[in-house]
Amino acid sequence: MTSAPIRIAVDAMGGDHGPSVTVPASLAALQDESSLEIVLVGLAERIEPLLAGAAASLRSRVRIHPASQVVSMDEKPQDALRKKKESSMRLAIDLVKSGEAHACVSAGNTGALMATARFVLKTIEGVDRPAIISRIPARHGYTHMLDLGANAECTADHLVQFAIMGSVVASDMHGIAKPRVGILNIGEEEMKGDGVVQEAARRLSASKLNYIGFVEGDDIFSGDVDVVVTDGFTGNVALKTMEGLVTMLVSAIKAEYTRNPLRYLAAAASWPVFRSIRREFDPRSYNGASMVGLTGVVIKSHGSADVVAFTNALRIASIEARKGVPTQIANLLSAQQEGSAA
Amino acid sequence: MTSAPIRIAVDAMGGDHGPSVTVPASLAALQDESSLEIVLVGLAERIEPLLAGAAASLRSRVRIHPASQVVSMDEKPQDALRKKKESSMRLAIDLVKSGEAHACVSAGNTGALMATARFVLKTIEGVDRPAIISRIPARHGYTHMLDLGANAECTADHLVQFAIMGSVVASDMHGIAKPRVGILNIGEEEMKGDGVVQEAARRLSASKLNYIGFVEGDDIFSGDVDVVVTDGFTGNVALKTMEGLVTMLVSAIKAEYTRNPLRYLAAAASWPVFRSIRREFDPRSYNGASMVGLTGVVIKSHGSADVVAFTNALRIASIEARKGVPTQIANLLSAQQEGSAA
Repeated sequence: MTSAPIRIAVDAMGGDHGPSVTVPASLAALQDESSLEIVLVGLAERIEPLLAGAAASLRSRVRIHPASQVVSMDEKPQDALRKKKESSMRLAIDLVKSGEAHACVSAGNTGALMATARFVLKTIEGVDRPAIISRIPARHGYTHMLDLGANAECTADHLVQFAIMGSVVASDMHGIAKPRVGILNIGEEEMKGDGVVQEAARRLSASKLNYIGFVEGDDIFSGDVDVVVTDGFTGNVALKTMEGLVTMLVSAIKAEYTRNPLRYLAAAASWPVFRSIRREFDPRSYNGASMVGLTGVVIKSHGSADVVAFTNALRIASIEARKGVPTQIANLLSAQQEGSAA
Repeated sequence: MTSAPIRIAVDAMGGDHGPSVTVPASLAALQDESSLEIVLVGLAERIEPLLAGAAASLRSRVRIHPASQVVSMDEKPQDALRKKKESSMRLAIDLVKSGEAHACVSAGNTGALMATARFVLKTIEGVDRPAIISRIPARHGYTHMLDLGANAECTADHLVQFAIMGSVVASDMHGIAKPRVGILNIGEEEMKGDGVVQEAARRLSASKLNYIGFVEGDDIFSGDVDVVVTDGFTGNVALKTMEGLVTMLVSAIKAEYTRNPLRYLAAAASWPVFRSIRREFDPRSYNGASMVGLTGVVIKSHGSADVVAFTNALRIASIEARKGVPTQIANLLSAQQEGSAA
């Protein structure tokens, strides 16, 4: 299949590993997708050597865009915005703004990326706050969950907008027809969440979305919902809780399997099981959260991403750019508004 | 060791399984602990047959306290409070109030149990809101987390009180000297939680507690914190997220191990590993959440608890009663107040 070329700007310096991950991952993505082009934004002297061995067919689709500054992982977002106008992160976003790139990807500081992207790209009309959305493995494939940390406090308006944006990502990017949308809440009838979730629920019930009601934490994995909407505080806590729990379980299982030689044999016999489970739940294959609600495509990779994980973030950027997610969100937002005005 | 007898009132009708779980679990707890006495509160005709085969040494320590009503699992808390004054749940709590029992345990409707316990027992002086606390398995053993769902919205005052109550449970009940207390928050510096968590953090820094600062979702399992403080909305979502994730993983692993005969062999070889992991992380061994902040000991068992799980909830009730947790909380609260007044 021949497709129109998609050009991705990569913050080559971002993340815990910088170019040693972003450059090989970019080459891997170019290998996977022949219509992809990549602009590596960063310190040329750090990037160039890593491109040395690349095949000509890949090298010809990479360009280096020099950047003299780097945003550190613990830099305050407002400092990054004010003082790092020549950073690899900022220039990658600028390339999206100018239309030279269709999407950008960074494994850098989430707060700085969000603040800079919001400042440079602005939000889509009708969106007050961009949100972070990601796929979470679930029984039926995966659930899309937002916000995962961009907005600690949210109004009912924000939650309704998140629901619209989540529906677009689930349907347009991932082909889920009429995605089922739920608002995260707690179970006790009399203790249920405050006016914000109640008001958002009322409005979603009256919308054209496939709103199914309140869901609880365990429903994220149940297969009964496709889009889980929540504020960024709760969403971030839930996401980190999942990460922490899986890390602990994996390390406990490893410890048990390496306790004695018999256990090593059992581990060897179980290898195909681990391989399947890992393939299904490998966090690397879910790496790449979208900052939705902006006028351009911005993908945040986990800071500790390795080459496999960062390549996945590039793949998500490519799909989102190809599907024109920001335009689809703008369309669904105005359709909803016409609907509510009618 | 001879200890003073502890008497527990059991809501025999509560939970998904009622007496078929609560009665055998009570007998198991009596078997484990020779100084324990149990009052089974409920419909005598449902309870009596289940005691028929019990050894005389156990039977002599059980008394049936008749109750003519049952609170259903989906009953509204206010309805339960107003219309079910003869329910097994209500009468079990009444027995704690009158001093006839040192603690009560119910697997019934959480909202109804909390509302009734609060109405009958009242809160300890200095505690505005009772909270639900439970142990969560972690790398170093377990973390105590509260609130797990009693209060969807919390003020800084509430969070400070939760920190004090969590410290008492961790130190007095579980022998953790100077428990490390953290407030759950999200990582992005500029997006961190609102004024409530910031204010609670300031006050805990100035308290006599061993406050270590903000923690994130993954820290629940990291071993770096002993008491995790959060509002009931976030806490409940985190707890349910853990439950949902573990359920999904266990079912995925089972599916992989039963895919073909070779996999069955691998499963057999891995049996000791599963047994250890299960022993370490079995949710049944963590069953029994305390409703702390009340003047008496009230333990909530999971509604779906089986005999093993419910027995564990009884064990927790016995320890909490023996340690006098409500008194310890009252003491630490007044010590903090003297500290802050000084």
